[in-house]
Amino acid sequence: MPTQFDPPSGTRDFLAREFETRERAFAVIRSVFSRYGFEPLATPAFERLDVLLGKYGEEADKLVFKILRRGEHEGTGEADLALRYDLTVPLARVAAAYGSQLPVPYKRYAMGPVWRADRPGRGRYREFTQCDLDTLGSSSVLADAEVICAVHDAIAGLGIGGFCFLLNSRRVLAGLLEVFGVPAPLGPGVLITLDKLDKLTPAEVTAELTGRGLPEASAAELVTAMTGAGAAERIRAALKSSEEGSAGLDEIDSVLSLLAGQVPDGRVVFTPRMVRGLSYYTGTIWEVSAEGLPASIASGGRYDHLIEQLGGPDVPATGGSLGVERMLLLLPDGEEGHRRLDVAVTVMGQQYAARSFAFAAAARSAGLRASVYLGASGKLGRQLRWASDQGARWSLIYGGAEEEAGTVTVRDMATGEQAAVPASELSGHLARLAHDAQAG
Amino acid sequence: MPTQFDPPSGTRDFLAREFETRERAFAVIRSVFSRYGFEPLATPAFERLDVLLGKYGEEADKLVFKILRRGEHEGTGEADLALRYDLTVPLARVAAAYGSQLPVPYKRYAMGPVWRADRPGRGRYREFTQCDLDTLGSSSVLADAEVICAVHDAIAGLGIGGFCFLLNSRRVLAGLLEVFGVPAPLGPGVLITLDKLDKLTPAEVTAELTGRGLPEASAAELVTAMTGAGAAERIRAALKSSEEGSAGLDEIDSVLSLLAGQVPDGRVVFTPRMVRGLSYYTGTIWEVSAEGLPASIASGGRYDHLIEQLGGPDVPATGGSLGVERMLLLLPDGEEGHRRLDVAVTVMGQQYAARSFAFAAAARSAGLRASVYLGASGKLGRQLRWASDQGARWSLIYGGAEEEAGTVTVRDMATGEQAAVPASELSGHLARLAHDAQAG
Repeated sequence: MPTQFDPPSGTRDFLAREFETRERAFAVIRSVFSRYGFEPLATPAFERLDVLLGKYGEEADKLVFKILRRGEHEGTGEADLALRYDLTVPLARVAAAYGSQLPVPYKRYAMGPVWRADRPGRGRYREFTQCDLDTLGSSSVLADAEVICAVHDAIAGLGIGGFCFLLNSRRVLAGLLEVFGVPAPLGPGVLITLDKLDKLTPAEVTAELTGRGLPEASAAELVTAMTGAGAAERIRAALKSSEEGSAGLDEIDSVLSLLAGQVPDGRVVFTPRMVRGLSYYTGTIWEVSAEGLPASIASGGRYDHLIEQLGGPDVPATGGSLGVERMLLLLPDGEEGHRRLDVAVTVMGQQYAARSFAFAAAARSAGLRASVYLGASGKLGRQLRWASDQGARWSLIYGGAEEEAGTVTVRDMATGEQAAVPASELSGHLARLAHDAQAG
Repeated sequence: MPTQFDPPSGTRDFLAREFETRERAFAVIRSVFSRYGFEPLATPAFERLDVLLGKYGEEADKLVFKILRRGEHEGTGEADLALRYDLTVPLARVAAAYGSQLPVPYKRYAMGPVWRADRPGRGRYREFTQCDLDTLGSSSVLADAEVICAVHDAIAGLGIGGFCFLLNSRRVLAGLLEVFGVPAPLGPGVLITLDKLDKLTPAEVTAELTGRGLPEASAAELVTAMTGAGAAERIRAALKSSEEGSAGLDEIDSVLSLLAGQVPDGRVVFTPRMVRGLSYYTGTIWEVSAEGLPASIASGGRYDHLIEQLGGPDVPATGGSLGVERMLLLLPDGEEGHRRLDVAVTVMGQQYAARSFAFAAAARSAGLRASVYLGASGKLGRQLRWASDQGARWSLIYGGAEEEAGTVTVRDMATGEQAAVPASELSGHLARLAHDAQAG
């Protein structure tokens, strides 16, 4: 593709086949979320610049696509709007704007493009779809469990197997720091390092902890407790001596007991070493790992004060985000030959055009996708090649012979078999074909 | 709504009810277009600035939202990208980029937001949805008729009545100018004035034509021919003496004969005074007027060289655009009370939470939208009020009495009637409720 015609760097055109694969996946997700009583929300592509900036940190602010002021102000080179960077800041704005008009709790999902001026790379785009579901206004652990359950059903509904929820709680992590005597100022750094236990060896993690200022004995004790067989049980026992840790464990156990029976055994696993980098989480946290993918395909947790920090009201909140672009990579490819039409109708000459046009309409009335041949050739072979390129199951042929006999020739494109159907019986015949097509 | 929380000027948030009304309409349109064998295309929200600018004229260029360069280039105040202004320029780019990978003809529809920095006003937005369908690569009048037929079915499918297609051809207009001896340099201006025959009086139009330099006698003759009863017939007769005009009439008659039987009589009317302002049309042109709306709700025509002018290959093309935002105004409002849930499940205490959570899952398995109560109150009255606010048809109540009896209380929220259903039979009961809900 010549450079000047490709879409802008980091963006994609979706032609029919890929578009339809994506839409089918989106429809599954929407349907699951809706069954849980989450309602849709759509916000504009851009927000006022001051709504967006300063909400994600300095590094992220650099990745925001800013929109130039217009008219006489264009020359200033200043921006007043920016493309949305995620779906959470718009949610906070909506929560602030519509307040009491929103139901309590406000359970909403949003699915749509967001834009980030990241360096494009394999699987990393500047325009990509995010899919969030969140419950604002409930402190109940039921709300946390409901989000996890809905995300589970959405992933399973897409036909993805071999995935697992890693579950933890910020309060468990706080309890851990307390029980193992980590000085408060070192806490955040220690957690960042512990999060690497899935990638580094225990010795490497211990060394990094020591480097952060943790006494070597404490570091070794912590890492030993958290790794190897029985780690979760050891941590459970240790946490009992901390009030915060016990409360965190209660959260975990509540979620696990709510999910028992709703998700297959072993799908949700208490994972004390799982930290989730983002500092705004306040309670349960979780992420979903899938076989064959290095990064998580979904994640979330409770973030009780974030909406206020983002400009909204101070409401308890819990939610999750599906990595739909990543999940789409796990989906099987669409059907082999892309089928654009069920019925292709030949036009054997100007004088037959109106009849052929009407036959196509009759096929559509029967619920079939149908179109007449729009090219210039009057040759049957050429028109049948077009029908075949469209992936049509059947062609309708109507020319001099058919006109004389009062019939339409119905050709099965797969077998080449042809049947002469009386024109007056075509509608009934098409209805049977439509029925067969659905059954097949 | 305080200013700082509303969406940016000219844009809208779509909360659940409005979102769903819109999505339902979009789904109808997509389904109709797909049945005609048009395939979907989605392109990025922004294009490179040079792809967009200079394509719509100077006035339009001022309405383009430009995106500031990023990183070290941000300080230049220059733009390198711009939000798409319509769906046609992206189509031209795609036609250039994917060339032979696209089917011939390439029949595509696109539906999505476009952005224009127009002064916002009643029904005029800066972010609004456009919906286009186009056939590239066919010169056949069948392609024109197919687009009109598909647009007709889409409008009718939305439940809009009282609409009418005004049909004309650029070649008819060229023939008119020839037959009535309009000097070539005056042609475009004369057409612009003739287009006002639906808003101004014949005398006013005649005066404007004279002002443009047309001799008074010619102006009066032209206006008289084109107004009053039998205008179409008079114009038909007059056009016979022009080769171009006759060819235009043949186009019109071909379209009319193809549409006969496919659209109700009188839905498509040859309207010689209808010009369509845009200069790029080359053949048939049409617009759809609807009762109660001053502007057209859809329009289109043949534009054989535009794709090349916009940067694509030189292909014949015909298409149309639905004014979906305007059409949405004609649709009946959604259901009265917005129903978020079919089944609301109370949580009468911590100890019943897991059972309640499982009952909600059972309702979802039966295909019902269901959720547990996520609030803090243990009071039944409060929870039933929540159920009612959700528009739930049924509540499931499970507390001490039910636990002892091994039942679940199923409350009909409309009548207040309650039934004690054995917990073991709840799934079957919910399946029957789901069946009733669908039937109702």
